[in-house]
This record gives sequence, structure tokens and C-alpha cells, in this order.
Amino acid sequence: MSTGLLRRLLPTLILCSAPLWSQPAAPVISEETKACLDCHATFQPGVVEDWRHSLHAATTPTLGMSKPALERRISATEVPEELRNVVIGCYECHSRNTAAHRDAFDHFGYTINVVVSPNDCATCHITEREQYAPSKKAHALDNLEKNPLYHTLVHYLTSQKKVEGSKLVQQPASETAIGGACYACHGTKVEVLALHTVSTAAGDVEVPLLTNWPNQGVGRVNPDGSQGACTSCHPRHSFSIEVARKPHTCSQCHLQPDVPAWDVYVESKHGNIMMSKEREYTWDRVPWLVGRDFRVPTCASCHNSLLATPDGNVIAERSHDFGSRLWVRIFGLPYAHPQPKDGATHVIRNADGQPLPTTFANIPASSFLIDAGEQAQRRETMANVCRSCHSTDWTLQHFAALDTAVVETNAMTLAATQVLGEGWKLKMADPKNPFDESLEHDWMKQWIFYANSTRYGYAMMGQDYAAFKNGWWDLNLNLQKMHETVRKAKSPPTKR
Amino acid sequence: MSTGLLRRLLPTLILCSAPLWSQPAAPVISEETKACLDCHATFQPGVVEDWRHSLHAATTPTLGMSKPALERRISATEVPEELRNVVIGCYECHSRNTAAHRDAFDHFGYTINVVVSPNDCATCHITEREQYAPSKKAHALDNLEKNPLYHTLVHYLTSQKKVEGSKLVQQPASETAIGGACYACHGTKVEVLALHTVSTAAGDVEVPLLTNWPNQGVGRVNPDGSQGACTSCHPRHSFSIEVARKPHTCSQCHLQPDVPAWDVYVESKHGNIMMSKEREYTWDRVPWLVGRDFRVPTCASCHNSLLATPDGNVIAERSHDFGSRLWVRIFGLPYAHPQPKDGATHVIRNADGQPLPTTFANIPASSFLIDAGEQAQRRETMANVCRSCHSTDWTLQHFAALDTAVVETNAMTLAATQVLGEGWKLKMADPKNPFDESLEHDWMKQWIFYANSTRYGYAMMGQDYAAFKNGWWDLNLNLQKMHETVRKAKSPPTKR
Amino acid sequence: MSTGLLRRLLPTLILCSAPLWSQPAAPVISEETKACLDCHATFQPGVVEDWRHSLHAATTPTLGMSKPALERRISATEVPEELRNVVIGCYECHSRNTAAHRDAFDHFGYTINVVVSPNDCATCHITEREQYAPSKKAHALDNLEKNPLYHTLVHYLTSQKKVEGSKLVQQPASETAIGGACYACHGTKVEVLALHTVSTAAGDVEVPLLTNWPNQGVGRVNPDGSQGACTSCHPRHSFSIEVARKPHTCSQCHLQPDVPAWDVYVESKHGNIMMSKEREYTWDRVPWLVGRDFRVPTCASCHNSLLATPDGNVIAERSHDFGSRLWVRIFGLPYAHPQPKDGATHVIRNADGQPLPTTFANIPASSFLIDAGEQAQRRETMANVCRSCHSTDWTLQHFAALDTAVVETNAMTLAATQVLGEGWKLKMADPKNPFDESLEHDWMKQWIFYANSTRYGYAMMGQDYAAFKNGWWDLNLNLQKMHETVRKAKSPPTKR
Repeated sequence: MSTGLLRRLLPTLILCSAPLWSQPAAPVISEETKACLDCHATFQPGVVEDWRHSLHAATTPTLGMSKPALERRISATEVPEELRNVVIGCYECHSRNTAAHRDAFDHFGYTINVVVSPNDCATCHITEREQYAPSKKAHALDNLEKNPLYHTLVHYLTSQKKVEGSKLVQQPASETAIGGACYACHGTKVEVLALHTVSTAAGDVEVPLLTNWPNQGVGRVNPDGSQGACTSCHPRHSFSIEVARKPHTCSQCHLQPDVPAWDVYVESKHGNIMMSKEREYTWDRVPWLVGRDFRVPTCASCHNSLLATPDGNVIAERSHDFGSRLWVRIFGLPYAHPQPKDGATHVIRNADGQPLPTTFANIPASSFLIDAGEQAQRRETMANVCRSCHSTDWTLQHFAALDTAVVETNAMTLAATQVLGEGWKLKMADPKNPFDESLEHDWMKQWIFYANSTRYGYAMMGQDYAAFKNGWWDLNLNLQKMHETVRKAKSPPTKR
Repeated sequence: MSTGLLRRLLPTLILCSAPLWSQPAAPVISEETKACLDCHATFQPGVVEDWRHSLHAATTPTLGMSKPALERRISATEVPEELRNVVIGCYECHSRNTAAHRDAFDHFGYTINVVVSPNDCATCHITEREQYAPSKKAHALDNLEKNPLYHTLVHYLTSQKKVEGSKLVQQPASETAIGGACYACHGTKVEVLALHTVSTAAGDVEVPLLTNWPNQGVGRVNPDGSQGACTSCHPRHSFSIEVARKPHTCSQCHLQPDVPAWDVYVESKHGNIMMSKEREYTWDRVPWLVGRDFRVPTCASCHNSLLATPDGNVIAERSHDFGSRLWVRIFGLPYAHPQPKDGATHVIRNADGQPLPTTFANIPASSFLIDAGEQAQRRETMANVCRSCHSTDWTLQHFAALDTAVVETNAMTLAATQVLGEGWKLKMADPKNPFDESLEHDWMKQWIFYANSTRYGYAMMGQDYAAFKNGWWDLNLNLQKMHETVRKAKSPPTKR
Repeated sequence: MSTGLLRRLLPTLILCSAPLWSQPAAPVISEETKACLDCHATFQPGVVEDWRHSLHAATTPTLGMSKPALERRISATEVPEELRNVVIGCYECHSRNTAAHRDAFDHFGYTINVVVSPNDCATCHITEREQYAPSKKAHALDNLEKNPLYHTLVHYLTSQKKVEGSKLVQQPASETAIGGACYACHGTKVEVLALHTVSTAAGDVEVPLLTNWPNQGVGRVNPDGSQGACTSCHPRHSFSIEVARKPHTCSQCHLQPDVPAWDVYVESKHGNIMMSKEREYTWDRVPWLVGRDFRVPTCASCHNSLLATPDGNVIAERSHDFGSRLWVRIFGLPYAHPQPKDGATHVIRNADGQPLPTTFANIPASSFLIDAGEQAQRRETMANVCRSCHSTDWTLQHFAALDTAVVETNAMTLAATQVLGEGWKLKMADPKNPFDESLEHDWMKQWIFYANSTRYGYAMMGQDYAAFKNGWWDLNLNLQKMHETVRKAKSPPTKR
């Protein structure tokens, strides 16, 4: 290169290089994590490579905390000294708070925990943990186990039956049966039984024997006593924001026939466009820019992500309490009702003393549910999200249709409940356990499947779920069937 | 750059630049649309960015009309002066034909319509609108509302029932219930009630209050009297040909249990390859080149797109009458039958005077249905599409299998109809409303779900829908159940 | 270019070009295949372009055989002279073994076969064919046709019924009905009836008339007597390893309600991540590197692909016997049982003389099933796959949960079988054909749908299939319904 040319280019070269020499040191891997990787890269390449592709492997808390407030993915403003300037590797997560962890054990000289819990993640992600802790998700296990009615239901449904003479006799449900069905989503209670020895490719190692493990349910009770599993939505070991934002994550649990959120979404116009265009979108920017990064919402966009306009105005704040933008709980128990004030719903008692948010006659247990003011505020938060693409009027009318659907589907559940009541009077079924006879099963389908699906269909415009697929069609066919069954019991057929 | 170098490069530079100075002026945005964008880019960034990513934002009618005939995406040969050399923005679409629009209103000094209708799109896409107007899709609302039998069915299915004494009493179905279920796909009647004021981020604005809105059903009746919604398949505001060509669009309405086109497709080998390889395909070329652009068809490829060979020979003309390549209507009412001559099927009367294309004994209302010659011609049009990948013999035999499936599934519907007839004779149900009692519900399932699914399974080779998933399995199990129910009514059980 | 510049660049030019002159000759297309392409590129551009995008069109057997052992996609060590240095085009495959092919015919002077069979593919892929031949898949047609019980079931399910008086009379099932339903997956018997003439765009041509064609079922009996269709999973005419590795291929047959492998997978965390991240993965490397190429498994990863660590250590050998890593057959007939020793399961006879792997009382036909040692070995092979991402303990506990689920779901099938037995005693149904009455239908659902789904749910952690979607919910509701039906038959209701 001639001296003249160099002289002319010099200012440009300096400008371009400047960021290089003012940049902090390249992220380093801690010695402890290097020791982990030494073995696990050989024996578990899948998990190690998954981590290597993650942001955790590419940045440090110091770098994360240096971002502008709106762009931060880390809510702590201070982290322990030893974490600040290393990437977040195996040891950084698995060695947190070992004193609180019943699953802490010595592994080749390092004390580590098997289960990384929300309390551990809170080291850097404190706000997220604080939002999550009081939510319905965090209490998802409690809310089944500690509610006597739901407890009965869970244990009836997952129990084997034996034929003894002309009777079906219920056996106690096993932890495995419950853990792979209901509690796979709701979370199990993971406890440490003992240390035991397992043979591995690296020789025999002693590890804690955990109960009800593996599990990634949202309300998992961890060996440190915390509730929840961040890996429910940010799967190990990439902990990807992209995966959590895509609807396939929610589809692990929120699917038909009981909570058909995924099914309704993917059928809707939103879902259509997402499936058709997702590869053109930016899935990992923070904040997530409506229009710029994505042009159709996913579950996360509407329900919890930090959304902003392309010029940086906040549309909705991030929340890890996934009900915080919802005013009505369309998942009826047995009726749709205002969202509960607190995520620990097992404390609710309705006017009839039942642990349900509404009575069988649909009187809401209002003192446990959010009031009209709070409902209006949440409705407005959600409307604000809708209005980043839709007009004010469009949004108002869409919400009004959902209001109507709630009233009408509740009426269809009430009718089924009245028919069941007549059946109980006729001794066609025994109300002692309201979940274990065929007429009761039809009644349950009316609300768990059909009324719920119909409401999801209206809420997210997935029309088949409001119609032929567990929608109005089924609400009416099922009710008619129950009605004819009870009518026949009153007047049994005679030979014609 | 030295003079010598410049002299040597000059011819190349001229060659490269030539297109630049012979090119028409860069597309411009109209002043009116700029005014729209000024506010809406702030308040509705999603919709504005969606449009910015569209072809509408990047080209003008003049550019569109200058393309070779086969490559044109715009069928008009003349468009209004003011549209010719501007991109197609907010104002260009929302200000069409305001005199005909009951939903026209003054918005900050501009007269605009809320609902852009097929008549408005026809300004540039006239052929598409003319093909669509007489199709079954355009009449999808009429065909339910004006057919007394279907009207009864729609209103029965979406109505609440009240328990009064030992009776279930049908309440009138609300417009909301119908609009979010049946008419979400079929389209609603959108009318203007009044102007009303809504509070927006930009202050109070007065807008028309529309009935049965929002809706994007294919047979929507618009405030200008037109029928249809181009946005059913080309969603706002990108109006993408890519989205319309991908099967997720059709899946919004054509899905199980009643019309499982999407479900069958995605299970088929076609669907498998599409899901596995779609990112390697070209989704927006016109004409769409078989083999070059895609190597497995979607719904659009077979049913309506303009297809050509890589060297430009037309395989199939574009049509926006989506039944135009179909000879048999496999969606049985209650039997599969030749396609209707006209999309307005509500005028059909069968030999028994019913508004159905076949009688309950499966006699087709032939004068309303296409004849053998027309059937043969459409069959050949479709065969031509198949043969761009499959052999002549393969295609013949595949079609022959479908013919057999039509005959056999119709026979299974006939058997169910005969059993129902016996039930009616025994007064097990009242034929006055043939849709509201359990035996009738089973009969309906036989044709709406099981016979239809089975036929879709054969038509598009999605075998599970011909077998265990609403297929032959269900045809037989349901028929047997109906048979046993009627048999029991004749000879009620006695104690054994 | 100046001489000085040339002199300086020369070493680089030589370095870059070196591979060019040491490379084998560029792949050539045989004269015969060129003749095929001459016509078919015009008349069937889809299939020709599909092939042009394939590896078959880009490489030769000689090149394929020159790869390091682990990277080879071709298992033959010698191929016929005429194939060695040409790409694998139309003629190379369609002209194999014509003497054995009843479907060989003269086509414009070339003798070709319509159906390319596994024996033809074996020319280059001999090991794959040898692994496949004794597998359950290869015998999928035989195992239905030659098993008298399954034969009865298949023919009952796909047969039309006629109403004669008060009876439902079974008609013989047509080959079309069976071929588009059960045998679409299992495979048909393809035979040559005659030569017949078809009109094509290229004029009249004489081609073999095949029975039960088209079909790509896994156990297809071909006109050369071989069993199977490589195109079941490697679809024509790209024969892509990518497509076969993606789960959409398996989803063509392995889906709910009977074998919900795809449905369970896509709901699981594995499926979630695959759907979210698949475009970042490498789908066609051989061997397939865990962590490097993919970070979440598909069906193929766990069940048959050659897997290696990023540094080239084999994790699992490739097998085209898809059951070879499985110890238990969770598809119960009617009970889950150890995998059969041989893929030809129609020879099995249980202790009661039935052609079933277990008796109705769940006594396994052990002499036909793999023993404990073989089970342990296969379990270890699969565990080795799991452990490339999961810990030893995680894997052990996951397998233990599956063991429990097998025991418990078998118990639920046993209870249903006992209730059915009581029904048979009460003459509520006739055990002669155990598949044709409603009480028997309920019993069948208990094992084909509900017990199977539940086990798939536990095996691959798709919790809804263990719970509300054909899982424990249905196991219990269905059993209760059967129980109440039989109880009512014993004590018919009287007027209350």
C-alpha cells in the first residue's frame, strides 16, 4: 500500500478499530467449569455443545449489566464477585447456594447441586424470579395437591382399577403414574432419598438419588425448597430466549383437550402467519420490537415479553407472572371467573365451602378473585398489545365477543351441572366422589374440555375450537346426551 | 483512481449502470398515505411494518402492468390515474369506492372505509375478483343462512340450552356465538350501526360501529354489499402470495374433524416433504415453476396457482374459484356428489324437495350439479397437475381409488341413514329437527366427520384419516353403535 | 496483469488449483439416463428436478466408496462395472434385476421396471437392505394378512355394511378400502395384471397394469417378490437423508390415535426444541454428530442413525431394523411385551393358541420374544444414546418410569378384558369375532388407543398423551363406561 493511500485511509482505520481497544477482556471460562467440560465434553457432547451455542457461554454478568436498561437480560445489579467476569458455565450454576440444596454432593472434589433451581437463577435474574414466585405457575403442584377436590381427581384419574367380583376397585395411584401425567406439567416434589452409586463411562460415581425425577414442571418443588423450573420454558442447556418466545414451548402443556391454547393459536391467523414467516423474524432481541422483529405475535408476545416500538417506546413491560395481563380465567373450574388474587389458589373457598373459585351454581368466590378495577387495568394492558397492530375499535369488539362467550359457555356448564344434579337425585351416580362415574365424566367434559375449548377459540380466534372441535358442537351434543341418559333413567324403555 | 484505470473500466461501468438510467422513477408514496403513516407508524407499528415488508410498498401498478403476461400479479390493464405511479399504501386501498361503502367516514379530513372489500381489490386484481365472485367461497355465508336446513343446524349448534323442569329448552343463538364459530370461516354480515367515539392514544376519534366485526370469513358480506374477504388468505397488511401458497393458510378453516384437508395433507408424503424442505423452496415467483421453485405441492399448487414448467409452459392456469379443478365434492351433504354448477348452493332442491344436493337415499339433484362432461374436463385439469411429478398410470389409479372410496363411504352413510330412519319410526327421535337428538348426532357424525375424513384420506393419501382417525374405524364403530341402540330400543334388556 | 504481479500470485494460484487436477473426473450422466431425461424433463419436471437436487445426481458409486468407512453412505464394496462412474440416474435404478421383475417392460427400447425395490437399492446399499429384510417393517403386510385375528380385524374395519331387515350385514372389503387405510402404511401386494395402453402427452404408451398401486407402505410386496419400500422414508426422487431424519417422515404412519409417536414427540421438550431450532442444525452429515450437527434428537437419532461425538467416536451404529434399539414393544397386542425375536410375527402362538404375543390374561408367548439378556443389551444401546445429553441417573430413572407405566397400563387392559369377559358370559357380545360389537369396540380402544398412548407418553415424555389425550383419563373413563354397561345389562334400570 502506498504511503499516500495509507495516509488517506488512516482516519477511517482508527475509527473502525477504536471499539477494539476499548472493549473489555474477552469472556473467560472459570477453572471449575473447565474441569467440568474436560469430562462432560467427551461423555455428554450434546449438552456441552448446547451450552456452547448459548449466550451464557458468550458473555459475562459484567457485560450483561453494562447494557442500557431496556436491553438488559439480567435484572440483578450486583452479582457475586466470582461470577462477574466469567461466562456462565456448568459450575457457575450448579454450585449456587449449596447449603440450601439437599441434592448437593461432592463430585470429583467439587460440591455441586443436581437441580438448578429458580433461587439459583435468581443470582442474576432476580426480578424474573420475584415475578414468578407468587404466580399460579409456581404453585401448580400445591394447587393440585393441597386442594382436596383436585387431589381426589388427580388420584382417581391416574390410579389402576382392579376387577373384584362385579366391582371396580381403585388402587392407590403411583408416584410414577401421577408424575408422568398431571405432574409432568404441574411439577413434582423432588426430594433426596440417599446417595447411590451409578456406573458411568467414567467409572462408578456416587450421586444423590432423587424422587420424582426427571421433571421440568412449572411448579416443581426443588431440593432447596424453591418452587418452579426455569427450564420448563428455557430448556437446558442453551436457556434460549428464542425457544421460550416460540409457541412450541407453550405447546408442551397448553394443548387440547383441556387447555388448547397452542392448538387454537396455530389454527388462528396469528398462527398461520407465524408458521409461514417465522424464519424472517428476529427472535432474540431485547426489547422485542413489534413490526421490526416480528409481525405476528406468539404466546410470549401477548402474555409476557417486554415489547417496544421500533423507536424504543415500551408497549408492555416484561413479566414472568404469566397471568398478569389476564383479567378473566377462561379455564373454568367449573366456570370461567375473574383471575385469582394470588397464585396459591388452594386456599380459595366458595360460598358452599368448596375449594373452588365458583360454586356449582356459578357464584364466584369474589373475595379471592381480583376486583373490577384490577380487571379493567389488566384488560387495558392487554389491549395495548393488541393495538400495536389492530385498531382500538377492533380490539374493543374482539374483547366484547370474548365477554359474551364467557357468559354463554358458563350457561352451558350450568345446564350440565343441573342435569347432573338430577342424576345424583335419581342415584344414577354418587356425589361423594363427583369424578368417578360415567354421568360425572360427561359433566366434567362439558367444562374441562368443551366450555374451555370454546372460550379459547373466542379468545384467540381459532374458530374450529369454538365449533366442531370440542366447541359449541360438543357443548350441545354432550348436554343432550346427558339429558337423554337421565330422562331414560326416569322412564326406562319398554318393548315397542 | 488513475486516468488509465478509469479508461479501461469505463466500458464496464457504462454497461453496469445502463439499467439505472433507463429505469422508471423509483416508487413513491402518495401524500395521503404519508399522512396515514405519520400517525399509524407510531400507534400501530406492527401493521405499518407489515406493509413496509410487502410488495405493495415496493412497486406501483405501472411497474406491475409492465411485466410479461405470465409474470403479472395484477390483472387489470388500466388503473385509475392517481394510482398508477404510487405504491399501494393505506390510502390507496382504504379510499376506493367510498360512495358504495356504508362504512366510509371522515378521518382527520380524509374519507376512508374501514373494510377493504373484494370490489376495492378489483381495482387492480379484477380477474381474481371475477373468478371468486361466483364461487362457493364467496357464497359461504348465504349458503348457510339461506338454506333452511343448514340454518336450523347452525342455530341449534350455537344456541345455549336452559334446563326447565325436565326439559332442555333452546335459547336463540347470539350473533357472537355464530360469528366466532361457524361464521368465523363462512363470514359474517358486516353492517354499520352508527358512528361512535372511541378513545385512542391519539385522542377521541369517531369511527363507524360495525356489526359482527372483526371477521375475515371467505363469504363475508361487506358494508359495500360485496361478498368475500381477500384477507382470508392474503392476510393484512402484507397481502403475501407466500403466505397464501403455504398450507397454514388453508389450515385456518380446512381442518378436522369436518374438513380435514390440512390434517390429511400434513400427514401425507406431500406434507412430510413440505414440512422438511420448505425453506429451500421459492414461494413468491409468478408463474410458480414446478421442480424449480418447489418439489412438492401445497394446497395452492394443486387447487389454484398458476403453474408452469421451468421452461415456461403453463401446466395449470391460475383460478380464484377454488373448486374449478374439482369434479366431485367429497364434502358430503350428506353424500359426496358432483360439484354444484353454481357457488350459490342454497337454491338447490333435491327430488324430495330438500335444500340438499342429494336425497337421504342418495339420489343426486343432478340439474344443479355439473354433468359428466364437465366432470371429465376438471378431472383432466387436475390430472395434468399430478402428472408434472407422477406418471399417467399412477395418476389414473390414484383417481380410481378415490372413485371407489366415494362409492363405499356413501354406502356407509346410507346404512346409517337407514338405521336412523328405523329410529325415527320407533319414535326414538323426532325427524322434525333432524339435528337435535343423540341418535341424530351419531348419524351426523357418520357423514360430517367419518365419511368426509375417509374421503379426504383417499383423495390426498393421508392414511390415518382413512383408518383410525375418523376413518373406516369410526364409520364402522359408529354404525354398529347406532344399530345396537336401535336394536335395544326394540328389545330392551331384561334381567339376566 | 503485470509479470511482477503474476509472479507474486503464482504460488497461491497453484495452491488453490491443486485439488482441481488431482480430483477424479466430474460425475457423468449415463447415455440411457440422458434419454430418460430428454422426455421426462419436459413431461415430469417435478420429479426430474427433485432428482437433480439429490446426492444421487451429484456423485458416483466410486466416489461414494472412496470415503472413510464412517462417512460412507453406500455399504457395497463393489458395484457393477456400468454403475461405477456414472451418477445414479433414472436408468441406473429402474433397470436393475429386470429378470426378477414382473413389472419389467419395454419403454422406447429400454427394458425398465416400474417399481424400484429394496433388492434394487441393495446394489449399492446392501447392508441397509440386509438389516431391513428381517425387521417387523419388512413384514408389515404379512403380519396382518397371515395372522388370522388381525386379518379378521382388518377386513371387518374396512368393509361396508348393508342394512338388511334389522341386521347389519358385512360386505367383503375391497382392495381399495384396505389399500388406502391399513395397507397404506403396512404396504400392499403389488402384482402385474397385464400390459395396458395409456394416453400420455408423449402419445400412447404401453405400461404394466399394477394392482394395489400406488403404494409406499413399509411392508409392500413388490413385483420382484421383495418386501418393503425404501421410498417410505427416503421419498422419490431425492432419496434424501435429511427428509428421513426429520420427524415428519415418521409422522406419516406413527401418529395418534393408535401409535402416537409423532404426536408425543412434537409435544415433548425434544419436539419443542426441534421445531424451534431445526434450521440451525446440519441434517445430512454422516456420521451424524451429536451436539455439533444437532442438539436435540429426532426419531432417527434415537432409533436408527449412525451417531458419533464431535471428535468421531461412535455412540450408536446405524441400523435399518428400527426395533433394534428397543427392548419392550409398547404397542400392546393387547399387552405391551418384550420385542419379538423375529420380524415375522404372524408365526407367534400364545399359550391359548392365539396368534398373539400375549394371552388375554397377559401371559407372554416367551419363546417367540427376546429374552432378558437381549432386552438388557438393547436397553443399554438406547441408554447410550440418551447419555450423550443426559446423566446416567436421569436415564436410569426415566427408563424405570417407563417400566412402571408398562405394568400399570397392562393392568388397565387386563381389567377391561375381564369386564369384556363378563359381557361375553352375559351374551352382550359374541366372542367369535372379538372386534365387531360395541362392548368389544370399547375394549379395543382400551389397548389400541389408551394403553398405547399412555405408554408412548411415558416413553418420550409427551405428558398429554399420558393424561387427557388418550391417556390415563381415557383408560379410566372407558373402563368405567364398560363396567357400567355390563352392570346395567345385569340389572336393567326400572322406573324410578
